[in-house]
Amino acid sequence: MTTVGILGGGQLARMMVLAGAPLGLRFVVFDPAADACAGQLAPLQVGAFDDLDALAEFAGKVDVVTFDFENVPAASARWLAERKPVFPNPAALAVAQDRLSEKTLFRELGIPLPPFADIRSRDELAAKVAGFGTPCILKTRRLGYDGKGQFRIRGAADVDAAWQALGAQVETTGLILEGFVAFDREVSVVAVRGRDGEFRAWPLTGNWHVDGVLSASLAPAVATAAQHDTAIAYARRVAEHLDYVGVFALELFCRGDELLANEMAPRVHNSGHWTSDGAETSQFENHLRAVLGLPLGDTRVLGRACMLNWIGAMPDADAVLAEPAGHWHDYGKQPREGRKVGHANLRADDAGALADALERIGNALGRQAQVEPVVRALRG
Amino acid sequence: MTTVGILGGGQLARMMVLAGAPLGLRFVVFDPAADACAGQLAPLQVGAFDDLDALAEFAGKVDVVTFDFENVPAASARWLAERKPVFPNPAALAVAQDRLSEKTLFRELGIPLPPFADIRSRDELAAKVAGFGTPCILKTRRLGYDGKGQFRIRGAADVDAAWQALGAQVETTGLILEGFVAFDREVSVVAVRGRDGEFRAWPLTGNWHVDGVLSASLAPAVATAAQHDTAIAYARRVAEHLDYVGVFALELFCRGDELLANEMAPRVHNSGHWTSDGAETSQFENHLRAVLGLPLGDTRVLGRACMLNWIGAMPDADAVLAEPAGHWHDYGKQPREGRKVGHANLRADDAGALADALERIGNALGRQAQVEPVVRALRG
Repeated sequence: MTTVGILGGGQLARMMVLAGAPLGLRFVVFDPAADACAGQLAPLQVGAFDDLDALAEFAGKVDVVTFDFENVPAASARWLAERKPVFPNPAALAVAQDRLSEKTLFRELGIPLPPFADIRSRDELAAKVAGFGTPCILKTRRLGYDGKGQFRIRGAADVDAAWQALGAQVETTGLILEGFVAFDREVSVVAVRGRDGEFRAWPLTGNWHVDGVLSASLAPAVATAAQHDTAIAYARRVAEHLDYVGVFALELFCRGDELLANEMAPRVHNSGHWTSDGAETSQFENHLRAVLGLPLGDTRVLGRACMLNWIGAMPDADAVLAEPAGHWHDYGKQPREGRKVGHANLRADDAGALADALERIGNALGRQAQVEPVVRALRG
Repeated sequence: MTTVGILGGGQLARMMVLAGAPLGLRFVVFDPAADACAGQLAPLQVGAFDDLDALAEFAGKVDVVTFDFENVPAASARWLAERKPVFPNPAALAVAQDRLSEKTLFRELGIPLPPFADIRSRDELAAKVAGFGTPCILKTRRLGYDGKGQFRIRGAADVDAAWQALGAQVETTGLILEGFVAFDREVSVVAVRGRDGEFRAWPLTGNWHVDGVLSASLAPAVATAAQHDTAIAYARRVAEHLDYVGVFALELFCRGDELLANEMAPRVHNSGHWTSDGAETSQFENHLRAVLGLPLGDTRVLGRACMLNWIGAMPDADAVLAEPAGHWHDYGKQPREGRKVGHANLRADDAGALADALERIGNALGRQAQVEPVVRALRG
C-alpha cells in the first residue's frame, strides 16, 4: 500500500485523491487551513509549509510527496526530498516559483517569449518601461498567483504608482517587468513526464481569462498543426531540461502564427481540468502514475471538450447535468468572492454539438458572456 | 450541502463516494466492519444493520439514505424510511431480497423466466425435482449472494443431500427450487430510474461467471437489437412496478433468441462497473443523481468497453495501465480468497482493438482463460 503525501489541500489535491483512490493509493494532505477541501476525502495534517517539525511528521506518514500548491518554500521541498522521494524535484519547483528564473530558462532553451527584465530599483523600472513601451506589467518574481502581486503600467506616468505598490517587495519576492503582448489567443500545453523520461501531452488547450483568472477552456484549442507541435515541443524541452516528473502546464500567447511562452505551472493545472471527462486519462491520474513510476495513460481527447470555471459561488447544477455529456465538479468549498469553487466539464463528439450545449447552459445560467468566446471558437 | 448515507461500506459505496464528491456531496457510510473499504474515503459509522440506536444516530447525520448492500434487514430500511428519504424504497428492496417474491413479480409482469417453486418440505423438494428434471438448484430465498446458500442437484439422488444442506433454513430464509436453463449467454441490463420516473438504461452487458462469481463483462453485449430492446423493456417494467429510484441490474439468460430473467440486484452492480470508464455517465454517478432528484446523465457507451474482475488478490497493474484505455480499480481491501478486491476497465473505439488489448493483458498476467470468452465474443 502506497501513501502519497500532497503539500496543499485544495481542489487540485482533492481531484488527485479522487483519481488516485482507484489506483489503490492512500493519501495524506498537508495544508495550513483546517478546512482545506481535500480534507473531506483524505486525512489532513494542518501545518505551516515552513514548520519542519510538522513536515517531519508528514514525511513519516507518506511514501512519496507531491504538490497541489507550487509556492511551498523551496527550502521545505528540498528538506523533504532528503527524506522521501519528491516529485516534481525541488529544483524544478524553484525555477517555476520564480518568474525571472523561469523566463530566463525559456530564453536559454530558445523558446520565444515577451520581453522581461529583472527590476531592482525605481530608476531601473522607469528605464525599462521606456524601453518596453506601455502597457507593461510589474510583477513580483515569486508568490504571484492569479493576478495578485501585479501592477499594470498603462503609461510612463504610472511608474511611481507601480513602484509604490510593489517596490517594497524588491528585496523579498523580487520584481520583474514584463512587456505586454497584443496576443490573439491564449493556449496551454498540459503535459506529463514519467520517472523513466516518457513524455506525453494532451492536445493544446485554448483558454479565456477574466480579470486574470481562468474562465473557460476548450480542447483541442483552435490552432494550426504547426502551433500544436511547436507548443508541445517547447513543453518537452522545459520538462527534459528540469528532469521534471509529473504533470505541468506551459501557458503561451498566440500572436498570428507565433507562440510566446507566458509561464509554467509545476503541477496539475486549471486548464487541464477538462481531462477528467474529456480525455482518455485525466491529468490527475497521469500525474500520480508519473509520480509512482507507473505507465502513463493515453492523453487523447474524446471529441471536443470544454471547461467552465465557477468563481465565487456554484451556480445551479441542473442546466449542466441535463446536457448529455455535462459533468459537475464542486470542490466542497465555502463560497467567497474571487474563489475558485468548482467547474463544469462538457464533451461532445463534434464542435457544433458542444457549441449548442454551451449556448443552452449560458442561457440557462445567465452566463452568456462566459460561454460566448468558446462558442465563437467552436463555430469557427 | 447534502449528506448521503450509504448502508454498507464496501466497494460499491466506495465508488459512489468517488462519483459523488464532484457533485459536492458528503457521505456517511454505515457498516458492521471497522475496515470497510469505503471508510478510507468517507466517515464510517460501525454498527449492525439491525441496531436501531446506531441507525438513529446514522439517520441524524444524513439527508438521504441508499444502499451498497441489498440484504440490510427490510425492517431496518422501513424504520429509516420513516425518518429520512430512502432510495430505492424499502418495498422494492424487500422484493429484490427474496428470490421467490422477485420471481413471482417477474411472472406477474409477463417476463419469461426459468421454472421455480417455493419449497417447504423435503417431500415437496423431491416432487419438484422430479417435475423440473435435473440439474436444478435449491437456494435460500433470502441472503443468497454469489453462489453462497445454494445446492446444485445433479440427480434425484441428491435430494437428501440438498435437504440436509439447506433444509434447516426452510423456516428462516425460506427455500426456492430453480430449474436449470441451458443458456448460451448471460447478459444484464443496468438501468436507472429517477425520482421523476425518468428511465435510462446502459447498453446490454454480456457477462461471464466463474464459480458463480462475475469474471468479465462486455458492453455492448453480443445480442440482437430485439434482445437489447426486450431486455431493457423488461427492466423498465420492473422498475415502474416497484416505483424504483436509483440504479439496479436485471440479469438474464439468453437461450437462442429467447431471454429469461434470472434475478435483479437493487443497487449499482458489478456488471455495470465498466461504465466508470466506458460510458458517458457511470452507474455510480447516475445512481446518486437519481437518489437526489438531479437530471440523469447520458448512458451511452463510448465505443466498446469491458471489465475484468480481480478476485482474491490484485494482479500487477502495469499490463493494464500500459494499454491506451486501461483503467485500474483497486478497492483498497486486504486480499482474501474469493473476495472481490478490484477490477480493470478497458475501452476501445472498435471490437478488434479491444480484443487485442485483452489478449495482451491475458498473456501478461497469465489470465488467458479469463479474457478468452470476451475475446471470442469480440472477434465474432
